[in-house]
Amino acid sequence: MIIDGLQCGHFDRKSFESLKLAGVAGVVVTCGFWEGALESLDSLGAWRDLIGENADIAAIAKTPADIVSANEAGKVAAILGFQNANLLEGRIRLVEMFAELGVRVIQLTYNNQNELAGSCYEAEDSGLARFGKEVVREMNEAGILVDCSHVGNRSTLDAIEASGKPIAVTHANADSLFAHKRNKTDDVLKALGQTGGVIGCATYRNITGDAYCATLEAWCTMVARTVEIAGIDSVAIGTDRSHNFTAPDYAWMRQGRWTRGVDYGAASAARPGKAPPPEWFPNVEDINVIPQGLRSVGFSEEEVAKITHKNWLRLYEATFRKSET
Amino acid sequence: MIIDGLQCGHFDRKSFESLKLAGVAGVVVTCGFWEGALESLDSLGAWRDLIGENADIAAIAKTPADIVSANEAGKVAAILGFQNANLLEGRIRLVEMFAELGVRVIQLTYNNQNELAGSCYEAEDSGLARFGKEVVREMNEAGILVDCSHVGNRSTLDAIEASGKPIAVTHANADSLFAHKRNKTDDVLKALGQTGGVIGCATYRNITGDAYCATLEAWCTMVARTVEIAGIDSVAIGTDRSHNFTAPDYAWMRQGRWTRGVDYGAASAARPGKAPPPEWFPNVEDINVIPQGLRSVGFSEEEVAKITHKNWLRLYEATFRKSET
Repeated sequence: MIIDGLQCGHFDRKSFESLKLAGVAGVVVTCGFWEGALESLDSLGAWRDLIGENADIAAIAKTPADIVSANEAGKVAAILGFQNANLLEGRIRLVEMFAELGVRVIQLTYNNQNELAGSCYEAEDSGLARFGKEVVREMNEAGILVDCSHVGNRSTLDAIEASGKPIAVTHANADSLFAHKRNKTDDVLKALGQTGGVIGCATYRNITGDAYCATLEAWCTMVARTVEIAGIDSVAIGTDRSHNFTAPDYAWMRQGRWTRGVDYGAASAARPGKAPPPEWFPNVEDINVIPQGLRSVGFSEEEVAKITHKNWLRLYEATFRKSET
Repeated sequence: MIIDGLQCGHFDRKSFESLKLAGVAGVVVTCGFWEGALESLDSLGAWRDLIGENADIAAIAKTPADIVSANEAGKVAAILGFQNANLLEGRIRLVEMFAELGVRVIQLTYNNQNELAGSCYEAEDSGLARFGKEVVREMNEAGILVDCSHVGNRSTLDAIEASGKPIAVTHANADSLFAHKRNKTDDVLKALGQTGGVIGCATYRNITGDAYCATLEAWCTMVARTVEIAGIDSVAIGTDRSHNFTAPDYAWMRQGRWTRGVDYGAASAARPGKAPPPEWFPNVEDINVIPQGLRSVGFSEEEVAKITHKNWLRLYEATFRKSET
C-alpha cells in the first residue's frame, strides 16, 4: 500500500487508473493555491463531480479508515487538501465549515507570506502570526492537518509548537541533503520527529536535485538519510507530482494574482520550465518501484510499511476529524 | 408544542428565553436576505456562535427529531433558513454544501426577481426560470425545504410542480382573505394542499390586515378560513416576527444593495415604519395564546396540534436531509 502525501494538477479518469495500477491507496490532492472561499467551494464542487463520475475507481476519504476501505474496494482515495489558507479569507469560523465539507489538509502559506505565517521564499520569515496561531488551534479542533511544506522554517517551528497535534510537511526534502529554500532545516525535521509529525519526501526535481533523481537507489538513500534526521516514524512520501499541468497552471500556481511579473517558484530563471521527473519515475504509476527501492537500501519490511503508508495513516488518525457531526 | 415557520432579526439570549417561555419548540430563523456565499458563511458562523453561547436553552436542529429532542431538553431549536437564494451565487453545487453546513430552508426569491424565479413584487412574474428548476431539484436531493413566501404566485405554482417533494410558504396569508401582493392566491393554496405542502399563517400586520390583528379570535378565524382553502394538513404558523430589528435592518432587508432609492417591502409610503404587532400578540412569548385561540374557533385537539407543530414536523420529515453524510 502506498499513500502519497501530495499531488496536484487536473486529475482525470486516467490519473486514477494510473494511481490504482501503481497500488496507490490514497493521495492528498491539491484543491487550490490562491483561490478565495467561493472559488474554493467551486473547486470542492468540481472534485465531488470528478469523484462521482469515477466512483468505480475513486473515492473521497475523510478518515484513515476511508482510505483503507477504498483500497480494499479497489479504489484510489482522494484526501482533499489546499496548499494555501486563502480559502479562509481571514475568517476563523470557516475552518470548521471547510472541515465539515471534507477538507482534511491545509497548508498555512503557499509561496508568499500571508495573514497566518511567513513563507519559505520571503526574505524574512515573520514566524507564526496572530491569525496563524488561531487557525492552527482551530484546525486542531476541527480535524484538519496543518501542512507547512511551503512555510518558512521559523514559522514551521512555531506551528509545531503552537499545534496541539502533530503537523506535516507533506512535500519537501531535507535542506541539509539538498539545499533549497523549499526544503526543511534539520531543526525542523527533528522537531517534527519529536512531536509525531511527518515529512513526505518529494520527488520534484527542483527541490530534490539531479543526483537524487538519477536512480531509485539514490532517492531511497536520500530517504534513509532523512530518516537518520527525523526518525523512522516521521518520514513518508510526498511526491509533489502533478497531473495534466500546462503553462497556464504553472503561471497560476506561481504568480496567482499577486504579481504582474514572473515568479519561478521552486524553479529558476535558468531552468524555468517544467522540471523533468526523476529518471526512475517517468510516470506516476512508477511510484510502485519505491518499496523495492527502500528494501534495497536496507529498510526492513516494517520500515518500508511505515514510509509508504503507516506513518501517514497514524498522523491522519491523530489529526483528522472523527465524524461528520 | 409550537413551531414557528419563520422569524427574523438579531436573536439574543433574551429571544431564546422568551421563545422557551412561550413553549416554542422550534423556529426557522432567517440567516440572510441579500448576502452572497461568503457573507452567508459568516452568518452561519455567527449563528453557531450564538447557539454555542446559549447551548443551555438553544440548539441548531437539522432534523425534525432534533426539534423534538431539543424541546424535551428544554431548549429552543433553531432551524437555519435563508430568505433568498443569493447565498448560492448562481452555483448549483453550493446547494448540497450549504445543506451539509446545516441549512434546511431556502426561499427561492426575496422581494426581487432573481436567477431562479419571479417575486411577488415584480410587475411580471416570469415563472420558475432555468436555474430555479435546477435548484429546486437539487434542494430535493440535498434535503433543503423550498420556501416560496415572497415568490410570485406563478413561480410558486411552477415550484410546486417542479419539486419532487412538498414545498412551503413559511410566512404569508391567503390573498382571498387579505389582499396583498405578499399573500397567496387560492390556486396556490389548493396546490399546496394537494401536494402535502404547508403555509405558515403570518401575524405581520402589513400582510394580515388590521381586522385579523385586532383579536386572537379574529386571527384564528383567518386560520380557519385558510384551512377551508388549503386543508387541515397544510396550514401552520409562520409569524414573520422579528427580534431587535431597527431602521438599518429594515433598510437592508428592503433595499439591500439593489436600489439607491427607498423600497417599502410589505409596508407602504403611507405607513412606512415598523408595523405594530397584533393587539393580542404584543410580545413574542404571547404566541402561546394561539392554541387556546384555535380551540375557541372550533378546532379539535388534533387539529390544533397539526396547526401548531405537526404539519411542520411532517413537512420537515419529508424534505430535510436524513443525515450529515
